[in-house]
Amino acid sequence: MSQAQVKAAILLIGDELLSGRTQDLNLQTIARFLGPLGVQVGEARVVADVPAEIVSAVNALRAKYDYVFATGGIGPTHDDKTADAIAAAFGVDIGIRDDARAILEAHYKGASNLNEARLRMARIPEGAALIANPVSKAPGFQIGNVFVMAGVPSIMRGMLEDVGHRIQGGAVMRTLTLRAKGLREGDIAAALGALEEAAGGMVTFGSYPWFSPPDSFGAHLVARSADADALAKAGGDLAELIRARGVAPEQVEE
Amino acid sequence: MSQAQVKAAILLIGDELLSGRTQDLNLQTIARFLGPLGVQVGEARVVADVPAEIVSAVNALRAKYDYVFATGGIGPTHDDKTADAIAAAFGVDIGIRDDARAILEAHYKGASNLNEARLRMARIPEGAALIANPVSKAPGFQIGNVFVMAGVPSIMRGMLEDVGHRIQGGAVMRTLTLRAKGLREGDIAAALGALEEAAGGMVTFGSYPWFSPPDSFGAHLVARSADADALAKAGGDLAELIRARGVAPEQVEE
Repeated sequence: MSQAQVKAAILLIGDELLSGRTQDLNLQTIARFLGPLGVQVGEARVVADVPAEIVSAVNALRAKYDYVFATGGIGPTHDDKTADAIAAAFGVDIGIRDDARAILEAHYKGASNLNEARLRMARIPEGAALIANPVSKAPGFQIGNVFVMAGVPSIMRGMLEDVGHRIQGGAVMRTLTLRAKGLREGDIAAALGALEEAAGGMVTFGSYPWFSPPDSFGAHLVARSADADALAKAGGDLAELIRARGVAPEQVEE
Repeated sequence: MSQAQVKAAILLIGDELLSGRTQDLNLQTIARFLGPLGVQVGEARVVADVPAEIVSAVNALRAKYDYVFATGGIGPTHDDKTADAIAAAFGVDIGIRDDARAILEAHYKGASNLNEARLRMARIPEGAALIANPVSKAPGFQIGNVFVMAGVPSIMRGMLEDVGHRIQGGAVMRTLTLRAKGLREGDIAAALGALEEAAGGMVTFGSYPWFSPPDSFGAHLVARSADADALAKAGGDLAELIRARGVAPEQVEE
Protein backbone atom coordinates (compact mmCIF):
# COMPACT_ATOMS: atom_id res chain seq x y z
CA MET A 1 0.00 0.00 0.00
CA SER A 2 1.96 2.95 -1.20
CA GLN A 3 0.97 6.59 -1.14
CA ALA A 4 0.90 8.57 -4.33
CA GLN A 5 3.78 10.89 -5.13
CA VAL A 6 3.07 14.60 -4.92
CA LYS A 7 5.27 16.74 -7.15
CA ALA A 8 6.08 20.43 -7.13
CA ALA A 9 7.93 22.89 -9.33
CA ILE A 10 9.91 25.89 -8.15
CA LEU A 11 9.93 29.13 -10.13
CA LEU A 12 12.65 31.63 -9.20
CA ILE A 13 12.02 35.10 -10.62
CA GLY A 14 14.64 37.81 -10.95
CA ASP A 15 17.22 39.32 -13.31
CA GLU A 16 19.76 39.25 -10.46
CA LEU A 17 19.77 35.44 -10.37
CA LEU A 18 20.48 35.19 -14.10
CA SER A 19 23.15 37.90 -14.20
CA GLY A 20 25.11 36.11 -11.49
CA ARG A 21 24.74 39.06 -9.12
CA THR A 22 22.86 36.97 -6.59
CA GLN A 23 23.46 33.35 -5.58
CA ASP A 24 20.10 31.61 -5.27
CA LEU A 25 19.45 29.97 -1.92
CA ASN A 26 15.68 29.51 -2.16
CA LEU A 27 15.59 26.37 -4.27
CA GLN A 28 17.43 24.34 -1.66
CA THR A 29 15.44 25.84 1.23
CA ILE A 30 12.10 25.08 -0.40
CA ALA A 31 13.14 21.57 -1.45
CA ARG A 32 14.28 20.73 2.09
CA PHE A 33 11.08 22.18 3.54
CA LEU A 34 8.84 20.18 1.19
CA GLY A 35 10.60 16.83 1.47
CA PRO A 36 9.35 15.94 4.97
CA LEU A 37 5.85 17.08 3.95
CA GLY A 38 5.79 14.43 1.25
CA VAL A 39 6.31 16.72 -1.73
CA GLN A 40 9.14 16.13 -4.23
CA VAL A 41 10.47 18.91 -6.40
CA GLY A 42 10.36 17.69 -10.00
CA GLU A 43 11.71 20.76 -11.78
CA ALA A 44 12.82 24.33 -11.23
CA ARG A 45 13.07 27.32 -13.52
CA VAL A 46 14.74 30.68 -13.21
CA VAL A 47 13.22 33.48 -15.29
CA ALA A 48 13.89 37.20 -15.69
CA ASP A 49 11.67 40.05 -14.53
CA VAL A 50 9.83 39.89 -17.84
CA PRO A 51 6.04 39.48 -17.60
CA ALA A 52 5.67 37.24 -20.67
CA GLU A 53 8.38 34.89 -19.37
CA ILE A 54 6.77 34.66 -15.95
CA VAL A 55 3.32 34.01 -17.43
CA SER A 56 4.58 31.31 -19.75
CA ALA A 57 6.61 29.53 -17.04
CA VAL A 58 3.88 29.62 -14.39
CA ASN A 59 1.26 28.32 -16.81
CA ALA A 60 3.50 25.49 -17.97
CA LEU A 61 4.40 24.48 -14.43
CA ARG A 62 1.00 24.75 -12.75
CA ALA A 63 -0.49 22.47 -15.40
CA LYS A 64 2.22 19.86 -14.96
CA TYR A 65 2.79 19.79 -11.19
CA ASP A 66 0.63 19.51 -8.08
CA TYR A 67 2.12 22.71 -6.66
CA VAL A 68 4.23 25.61 -7.83
CA PHE A 69 6.36 27.68 -5.47
CA ALA A 70 7.40 31.03 -6.92
CA THR A 71 9.77 33.51 -5.31
CA GLY A 72 10.82 37.06 -6.13
CA GLY A 73 9.42 40.19 -7.70
CA ILE A 74 6.72 41.19 -5.20
CA GLY A 75 8.37 44.29 -3.72
CA PRO A 76 7.54 47.99 -4.20
CA THR A 77 9.84 48.91 -7.10
CA HIS A 78 9.21 49.04 -10.84
CA ASP A 79 11.18 45.85 -11.44
CA ASP A 80 8.76 43.86 -9.26
CA LYS A 81 6.50 42.39 -11.91
CA THR A 82 5.45 39.08 -10.43
CA ALA A 83 1.99 39.84 -8.99
CA ASP A 84 0.71 41.33 -12.24
CA ALA A 85 2.20 38.49 -14.25
CA ILE A 86 0.56 35.86 -12.03
CA ALA A 87 -2.81 37.61 -12.40
CA ALA A 88 -2.29 37.61 -16.17
CA ALA A 89 -1.35 33.92 -16.11
CA PHE A 90 -4.61 33.09 -14.32
CA GLY A 91 -6.63 35.56 -16.41
CA VAL A 92 -7.90 37.43 -13.34
CA ASP A 93 -7.93 41.08 -12.30
CA ILE A 94 -5.50 42.56 -9.81
CA GLY A 95 -5.98 45.50 -7.49
CA ILE A 96 -5.23 46.82 -4.01
CA ARG A 97 -6.90 44.60 -1.46
CA ASP A 98 -8.22 45.90 1.86
CA ASP A 99 -6.77 43.16 4.05
CA ALA A 100 -3.34 43.50 2.49
CA ARG A 101 -3.54 47.27 2.74
CA ALA A 102 -4.46 47.04 6.43
CA ILE A 103 -1.37 44.91 7.11
CA LEU A 104 0.85 47.49 5.44
CA GLU A 105 -0.88 50.44 7.19
CA ALA A 106 -0.27 48.86 10.58
CA HIS A 107 3.36 48.19 9.70
CA TYR A 108 4.06 51.64 8.29
CA LYS A 109 2.27 53.29 11.24
CA GLY A 110 -0.71 54.71 9.44
CA ALA A 111 -1.48 55.65 5.90
CA SER A 112 0.88 58.64 5.74
CA ASN A 113 4.03 56.54 5.15
CA LEU A 114 2.13 54.25 2.85
CA ASN A 115 3.04 55.86 -0.45
CA GLU A 116 2.01 54.66 -3.87
CA ALA A 117 5.08 52.44 -4.24
CA ARG A 118 4.42 50.61 -0.96
CA LEU A 119 0.76 50.25 -1.86
CA ARG A 120 1.88 48.20 -4.85
CA MET A 121 2.63 45.47 -2.31
CA ALA A 122 -1.10 45.33 -1.48
CA ARG A 123 -1.98 44.53 -5.08
CA ILE A 124 -3.19 40.92 -5.01
CA PRO A 125 -4.70 38.88 -7.86
CA GLU A 126 -8.44 38.32 -7.50
CA GLY A 127 -9.31 35.11 -5.72
CA ALA A 128 -5.92 34.70 -4.07
CA ALA A 129 -5.39 33.97 -0.35
CA LEU A 130 -2.70 35.96 1.47
CA ILE A 131 0.48 34.35 2.80
CA ALA A 132 1.63 35.92 6.06
CA ASN A 133 5.04 37.59 6.13
CA PRO A 134 6.37 37.52 9.71
CA VAL A 135 9.55 39.39 8.75
CA SER A 136 8.67 42.49 6.75
CA LYS A 137 4.86 42.21 6.70
CA ALA A 138 4.11 42.72 2.97
CA PRO A 139 2.23 39.50 2.21
CA GLY A 140 2.71 36.81 -0.39
CA PHE A 141 -0.27 35.04 -1.86
CA GLN A 142 -1.65 31.71 -3.00
CA ILE A 143 -3.78 31.40 -6.09
CA GLY A 144 -4.89 27.94 -7.17
CA ASN A 145 -1.91 25.63 -6.75
CA VAL A 146 0.62 28.47 -7.00
CA PHE A 147 2.32 30.00 -3.95
CA VAL A 148 4.01 33.35 -4.49
CA MET A 149 6.63 34.43 -1.96
CA ALA A 150 9.33 37.04 -1.50
CA GLY A 151 12.76 36.57 -3.04
CA VAL A 152 14.84 37.64 -0.02
CA PRO A 153 15.75 34.29 1.57
CA SER A 154 14.97 35.22 5.18
CA ILE A 155 11.54 36.56 4.23
CA MET A 156 10.80 33.61 1.97
CA ARG A 157 11.69 31.23 4.79
CA GLY A 158 9.31 33.06 7.11
CA MET A 159 6.49 32.82 4.59
CA LEU A 160 6.91 29.03 4.29
CA GLU A 161 5.52 28.78 7.83
CA ASP A 162 2.17 29.94 6.48
CA VAL A 163 2.42 27.62 3.48
CA GLY A 164 3.12 24.21 5.01
CA HIS A 165 -0.37 23.74 6.50
CA ARG A 166 -1.94 24.27 3.07
CA ILE A 167 -0.01 21.40 1.45
CA GLN A 168 -1.46 17.91 0.94
CA GLY A 169 1.66 15.80 0.75
CA GLY A 170 2.01 12.22 -0.41
CA ALA A 171 4.69 9.63 0.13
CA VAL A 172 7.69 10.97 2.03
CA MET A 173 10.91 10.16 0.20
CA ARG A 174 13.62 9.33 2.71
CA THR A 175 17.30 9.52 1.97
CA LEU A 176 20.37 7.75 3.28
CA THR A 177 23.87 8.95 2.46
CA LEU A 178 27.18 7.14 2.91
CA ARG A 179 30.49 8.93 2.46
CA ALA A 180 33.32 6.87 1.04
CA LYS A 181 36.70 8.56 1.18
CA GLY A 182 39.13 7.39 -1.49
CA LEU A 183 36.45 5.54 -3.42
CA ARG A 184 36.42 6.09 -7.17
CA GLU A 185 33.00 6.15 -8.81
CA GLY A 186 34.23 4.09 -11.75
CA ASP A 187 35.06 1.20 -9.40
CA ILE A 188 31.54 0.85 -8.01
CA ALA A 189 29.44 1.97 -10.97
CA ALA A 190 28.52 -1.51 -12.19
CA ALA A 191 27.64 -2.78 -8.71
CA LEU A 192 25.63 0.35 -7.97
CA GLY A 193 23.66 0.06 -11.19
CA ALA A 194 22.95 -3.59 -10.30
CA LEU A 195 21.55 -2.48 -6.91
CA GLU A 196 19.22 -0.01 -8.61
CA GLU A 197 18.11 -2.66 -11.06
CA ALA A 198 17.45 -5.19 -8.29
CA ALA A 199 15.43 -2.63 -6.30
CA GLY A 200 12.83 -2.61 -9.08
CA GLY A 201 11.90 1.03 -8.64
CA MET A 202 11.50 0.83 -4.84
CA VAL A 203 14.84 2.57 -4.28
CA THR A 204 16.85 4.93 -6.45
CA PHE A 205 20.60 5.23 -6.02
CA GLY A 206 22.82 8.21 -6.75
CA SER A 207 26.57 8.66 -6.80
CA TYR A 208 28.15 12.08 -6.24
CA PRO A 209 31.93 12.35 -6.45
CA TRP A 210 33.75 14.96 -4.39
CA PHE A 211 37.21 16.42 -4.66
CA SER A 212 39.05 18.27 -1.96
CA PRO A 213 42.33 19.79 -3.15
CA PRO A 214 45.13 18.90 -3.22
CA ASP A 215 44.53 15.17 -3.29
CA SER A 216 41.57 14.06 -1.21
CA PHE A 217 38.61 12.62 -3.06
CA GLY A 218 35.76 10.20 -2.74
CA ALA A 219 32.07 9.77 -3.39
CA HIS A 220 28.78 10.15 -1.60
CA LEU A 221 26.49 7.25 -2.32
CA VAL A 222 22.84 8.06 -1.80
CA ALA A 223 19.75 5.86 -1.62
CA ARG A 224 16.23 7.29 -1.75
CA SER A 225 12.99 5.47 -1.05
CA ALA A 226 9.52 6.02 0.33
CA ASP A 227 9.76 2.61 2.01
CA ALA A 228 11.65 2.42 5.31
CA ASP A 229 12.51 -1.28 5.07
CA ALA A 230 13.71 -1.00 1.50
CA LEU A 231 15.83 2.01 2.46
CA ALA A 232 17.38 0.16 5.41
CA LYS A 233 18.26 -2.77 3.15
CA ALA A 234 19.71 -0.37 0.58
CA GLY A 235 21.88 1.20 3.28
CA GLY A 236 23.26 -2.21 4.20
CA ASP A 237 23.89 -3.06 0.57
CA LEU A 238 25.70 0.24 -0.02
CA ALA A 239 27.86 -0.19 3.05
CA GLU A 240 28.84 -3.68 1.93
CA LEU A 241 29.62 -2.45 -1.58
CA ILE A 242 31.91 0.23 -0.15
CA ARG A 243 33.65 -2.10 2.34
CA ALA A 244 34.28 -4.61 -0.45
CA ARG A 245 36.57 -1.93 -2.00
CA GLY A 246 38.56 -1.62 1.24
CA VAL A 247 36.92 1.64 2.29
CA ALA A 248 35.08 2.32 5.57
CA PRO A 249 31.68 3.91 4.85
CA GLU A 250 30.69 6.89 7.00
CA GLN A 251 27.02 7.69 7.48
CA VAL A 252 26.22 11.33 6.73
CA GLU A 253 23.56 13.08 8.81
CA GLU A 254 20.81 14.47 6.59
CA MET B 1 25.74 51.71 -33.40
CA SER B 2 24.85 49.03 -30.92
CA GLN B 3 25.84 45.38 -30.99
CA ALA B 4 23.17 42.72 -30.95
CA GLN B 5 22.39 40.94 -27.70
CA VAL B 6 23.47 37.32 -27.45
CA LYS B 7 21.41 35.21 -25.08
CA ALA B 8 22.04 31.90 -23.40
CA ALA B 9 20.14 29.41 -21.29
CA ILE B 10 21.56 27.25 -18.52
CA LEU B 11 20.34 23.72 -17.94
CA LEU B 12 21.30 22.14 -14.62
CA ILE B 13 20.75 18.38 -14.56
CA GLY B 14 20.55 16.26 -11.43
CA ASP B 15 18.17 14.82 -8.84
CA GLU B 16 20.48 16.09 -6.10
CA LEU B 17 19.76 19.72 -6.98
CA LEU B 18 16.00 19.20 -6.78
CA SER B 19 16.03 17.17 -3.57
CA GLY B 20 17.94 19.93 -1.81
CA ARG B 21 20.90 17.64 -1.18
CA THR B 22 23.23 19.83 -3.21
CA GLN B 23 23.34 23.63 -3.38
CA ASP B 24 23.85 24.65 -7.00
CA LEU B 25 26.83 26.89 -7.64
CA ASN B 26 27.14 26.46 -11.40
CA LEU B 27 24.45 28.93 -12.49
CA GLN B 28 26.25 31.86 -10.91
CA THR B 29 29.68 30.72 -12.13
CA ILE B 30 28.51 30.35 -15.72
CA ALA B 31 26.59 33.66 -15.68
CA ARG B 32 29.64 35.53 -14.38
CA PHE B 33 31.87 33.83 -16.95
CA LEU B 34 29.57 34.69 -19.86
CA GLY B 35 28.84 38.31 -18.93
CA PRO B 36 32.25 39.74 -19.95
CA LEU B 37 32.08 37.68 -23.17
CA GLY B 38 28.92 39.52 -24.16
CA VAL B 39 26.45 36.75 -23.45
CA GLN B 40 23.46 37.29 -21.16
CA VAL B 41 21.70 34.41 -19.46
CA GLY B 42 18.00 34.67 -20.27
CA GLU B 43 16.69 31.62 -18.44
CA ALA B 44 17.78 28.61 -16.44
CA ARG B 45 16.16 25.26 -15.75
CA VAL B 46 16.89 22.50 -13.30
CA VAL B 47 15.72 19.04 -14.33
CA ALA B 48 15.98 15.56 -12.83
CA ASP B 49 18.07 12.66 -14.16
CA VAL B 50 15.15 11.64 -16.35
CA PRO B 51 15.93 11.30 -20.06
CA ALA B 52 12.57 12.61 -21.32
CA GLU B 53 12.87 15.71 -19.13
CA ILE B 54 16.40 16.42 -20.34
CA VAL B 55 15.41 15.96 -23.99
CA SER B 56 12.41 18.22 -23.68
CA ALA B 57 14.30 20.98 -21.86
CA VAL B 58 17.33 20.97 -24.16
CA ASN B 59 15.18 21.07 -27.27
CA ALA B 60 13.08 23.96 -25.93
CA LEU B 61 16.14 25.93 -24.89
CA ARG B 62 18.38 25.38 -27.92
CA ALA B 63 15.61 26.59 -30.21
CA LYS B 64 15.02 29.74 -28.17
CA TYR B 65 18.56 30.82 -27.19
CA ASP B 66 21.86 31.39 -28.99
CA TYR B 67 23.64 29.02 -26.63
CA VAL B 68 22.75 26.42 -24.02
CA PHE B 69 25.12 25.47 -21.20
CA ALA B 70 24.24 22.16 -19.57
CA THR B 71 25.91 20.68 -16.50
CA GLY B 72 25.68 17.35 -14.73
CA GLY B 73 25.06 13.70 -15.51
CA ILE B 74 28.13 12.80 -17.60
CA GLY B 75 29.93 10.56 -15.09
CA PRO B 76 30.36 6.76 -15.07
CA THR B 77 27.37 5.66 -12.96
CA HIS B 78 23.90 4.50 -13.96
CA ASP B 79 22.33 7.81 -12.88
CA ASP B 80 24.42 9.71 -15.45
CA LYS B 81 21.93 10.00 -18.29
CA THR B 82 22.84 13.28 -19.92
CA ALA B 83 24.98 12.19 -22.91
CA ASP B 84 22.38 9.71 -24.15
CA ALA B 85 19.59 12.25 -23.63
CA ILE B 86 21.46 14.93 -25.59
CA ALA B 87 22.02 12.48 -28.45
CA ALA B 88 18.30 11.69 -28.39
CA ALA B 89 17.44 15.39 -28.37
CA PHE B 90 19.53 15.92 -31.50
CA GLY B 91 18.38 12.66 -33.08
CA VAL B 92 21.93 11.36 -33.52
CA ASP B 93 23.69 8.14 -32.54
CA ILE B 94 25.98 7.86 -29.55
CA GLY B 95 28.93 5.54 -29.05
CA ILE B 96 32.41 5.27 -27.63
CA ARG B 97 34.69 7.65 -29.48
CA ASP B 98 38.35 6.93 -30.06
CA ASP B 99 39.69 10.36 -29.07
CA ALA B 100 37.67 10.38 -25.85
CA ARG B 101 38.74 6.80 -25.11
CA ALA B 102 42.40 7.72 -25.64
CA ILE B 103 42.10 10.53 -23.10
CA LEU B 104 40.66 8.14 -20.52
CA GLU B 105 43.24 5.42 -21.28
CA ALA B 106 46.08 7.85 -20.70
CA HIS B 107 44.49 9.04 -17.44
CA TYR B 108 43.73 5.57 -16.10
CA LYS B 109 47.23 4.34 -17.09
CA GLY B 110 46.31 1.91 -19.80
CA ALA B 111 43.20 0.03 -20.77
CA SER B 112 43.25 -2.35 -17.80
CA ASN B 113 41.73 0.16 -15.33
CA LEU B 114 39.35 1.39 -17.97
CA ASN B 115 36.36 -0.73 -17.08
CA GLU B 116 32.98 -0.62 -18.76
CA ALA B 117 31.67 2.02 -16.38
CA ARG B 118 34.55 4.39 -17.08
CA LEU B 119 34.22 3.77 -20.79
CA ARG B 120 30.72 5.24 -20.55
CA MET B 121 32.48 8.59 -20.17
CA ALA B 122 33.88 8.14 -23.71
CA ARG B 123 30.38 7.85 -25.17
CA ILE B 124 29.89 11.05 -27.19
CA PRO B 125 26.97 11.98 -29.46
CA GLU B 126 27.82 11.81 -33.16
CA GLY B 127 29.03 15.11 -34.56
CA ALA B 128 29.97 16.60 -31.19
CA ALA B 129 33.31 18.28 -30.43
CA LEU B 130 35.04 17.40 -27.16
CA ILE B 131 35.45 19.92 -24.32
CA ALA B 132 38.74 19.44 -22.47
CA ASN B 133 38.57 18.59 -18.77
CA PRO B 134 41.78 19.80 -17.10
CA VAL B 135 40.72 18.45 -13.69
CA SER B 136 39.58 14.85 -14.02
CA LYS B 137 40.12 14.31 -17.78
CA ALA B 138 36.75 12.78 -18.80
CA PRO B 139 35.66 15.26 -21.47
CA GLY B 140 32.52 17.27 -21.95
CA PHE B 141 31.24 17.98 -25.43
CA GLN B 142 29.67 20.58 -27.67
CA ILE B 143 26.98 19.68 -30.17
CA GLY B 144 25.42 22.47 -32.18
CA ASN B 145 24.84 25.38 -29.81
CA VAL B 146 24.76 23.16 -26.73
CA PHE B 147 27.73 22.80 -24.37
CA VAL B 148 27.62 19.84 -22.00
CA MET B 149 29.85 19.96 -18.93
CA ALA B 150 30.39 18.16 -15.64
CA GLY B 151 28.23 18.94 -12.62
CA VAL B 152 31.03 19.11 -10.03
CA PRO B 153 31.71 22.87 -9.78
CA SER B 154 35.52 22.69 -9.87
CA ILE B 155 35.45 20.46 -12.96
CA MET B 156 32.78 22.56 -14.65
CA ARG B 157 34.86 25.67 -14.03
CA GLY B 158 37.87 24.02 -15.62
CA MET B 159 35.85 23.05 -18.70
CA LEU B 160 34.72 26.65 -19.23
CA GLU B 161 38.31 27.46 -20.23
CA ASP B 162 37.80 25.33 -23.33
CA VAL B 163 34.39 26.87 -23.99
CA GLY B 164 35.03 30.61 -23.97
CA HIS B 165 36.95 30.69 -27.26
CA ARG B 166 34.01 29.04 -29.04
CA ILE B 167 31.54 31.76 -28.05
CA GLN B 168 30.59 34.64 -30.36
CA GLY B 169 29.44 37.24 -27.89
CA GLY B 170 27.53 40.44 -28.54
CA ALA B 171 27.05 43.59 -26.51
CA VAL B 172 28.65 43.40 -23.08
CA MET B 173 26.19 44.40 -20.39
CA ARG B 174 27.98 46.36 -17.68
CA THR B 175 26.70 46.76 -14.17
CA LEU B 176 27.10 49.38 -11.48
CA THR B 177 25.95 48.78 -7.93
CA LEU B 178 25.46 51.28 -5.10
CA ARG B 179 24.86 50.18 -1.55
CA ALA B 180 22.59 52.37 0.52
CA LYS B 181 22.51 51.51 4.22
CA GLY B 182 19.29 52.48 5.95
CA LEU B 183 17.49 53.22 2.71
CA ARG B 184 13.99 51.79 2.38
CA GLU B 185 12.99 50.63 -1.09
CA GLY B 186 9.54 52.13 -0.73
CA ASP B 187 11.06 55.60 -0.34
CA ILE B 188 12.90 55.53 -3.67
CA ALA B 189 10.64 53.33 -5.76
CA ALA B 190 8.89 56.14 -7.63
CA ALA B 191 12.14 58.00 -8.38
CA LEU B 192 13.83 54.79 -9.48
CA GLY B 193 11.00 53.91 -11.82
CA ALA B 194 11.22 57.42 -13.29
CA LEU B 195 14.95 56.90 -13.96
CA GLU B 196 14.23 53.67 -15.83
CA GLU B 197 11.48 55.36 -17.82
CA ALA B 198 13.73 58.29 -18.72
CA ALA B 199 16.53 55.94 -19.84
CA GLY B 200 14.30 54.71 -22.65
CA GLY B 201 15.63 51.18 -22.65
CA MET B 202 19.31 52.17 -22.63
CA VAL B 203 19.64 51.35 -18.94
CA THR B 204 17.71 49.00 -16.68
CA PHE B 205 17.57 49.59 -12.94
CA GLY B 206 17.10 47.07 -10.18
CA SER B 207 16.53 47.39 -6.46
CA TYR B 208 17.51 44.61 -4.05
CA PRO B 209 16.72 45.08 -0.36
CA TRP B 210 18.95 43.50 2.26
CA PHE B 211 18.42 42.76 5.92
CA SER B 212 21.12 42.03 8.44
CA PRO B 213 19.76 40.98 11.84
CA PRO B 214 19.03 42.36 14.31
CA ASP B 215 18.28 45.77 12.83
CA SER B 216 20.53 46.72 9.95
CA PHE B 217 18.95 47.04 6.54
CA GLY B 218 19.23 48.82 3.23
CA ALA B 219 19.13 48.29 -0.49
CA HIS B 220 21.47 47.68 -3.37
CA LEU B 221 20.56 49.80 -6.35
CA VAL B 222 21.84 48.39 -9.62
CA ALA B 223 22.08 49.89 -13.10
CA ARG B 224 22.82 47.76 -16.18
CA SER B 225 23.66 48.98 -19.64
CA ALA B 226 25.69 48.07 -22.70
CA ASP B 227 26.59 51.76 -23.10
CA ALA B 228 29.41 53.12 -20.93
CA ASP B 229 28.26 56.74 -21.03
CA ALA B 230 24.67 55.86 -20.23
CA LEU B 231 25.87 53.70 -17.34
CA ALA B 232 28.08 56.48 -15.95
CA LYS B 233 25.15 58.90 -16.06
CA ALA B 234 22.92 56.30 -14.39
CA GLY B 235 25.49 55.92 -11.61
CA GLY B 236 25.43 59.66 -10.99
CA ASP B 237 21.65 59.72 -11.00
CA LEU B 238 21.46 56.82 -8.55
CA ALA B 239 23.99 58.43 -6.19
CA GLU B 240 22.01 61.67 -6.21
CA LEU B 241 18.75 59.82 -5.57
CA ILE B 242 20.30 58.10 -2.55
CA ARG B 243 21.93 61.26 -1.16
CA ALA B 244 18.60 63.10 -1.45
CA ARG B 245 17.29 60.65 1.21
CA GLY B 246 20.15 61.56 3.56
CA VAL B 247 22.12 58.37 2.89
CA ALA B 248 25.72 58.16 1.67
CA PRO B 249 25.93 55.76 -1.30
CA GLU B 250 28.79 53.25 -1.31
CA GLN B 251 30.01 51.84 -4.60
CA VAL B 252 30.18 48.05 -4.59
CA GLU B 253 32.98 46.32 -6.49
CA GLU B 254 31.62 43.87 -9.06
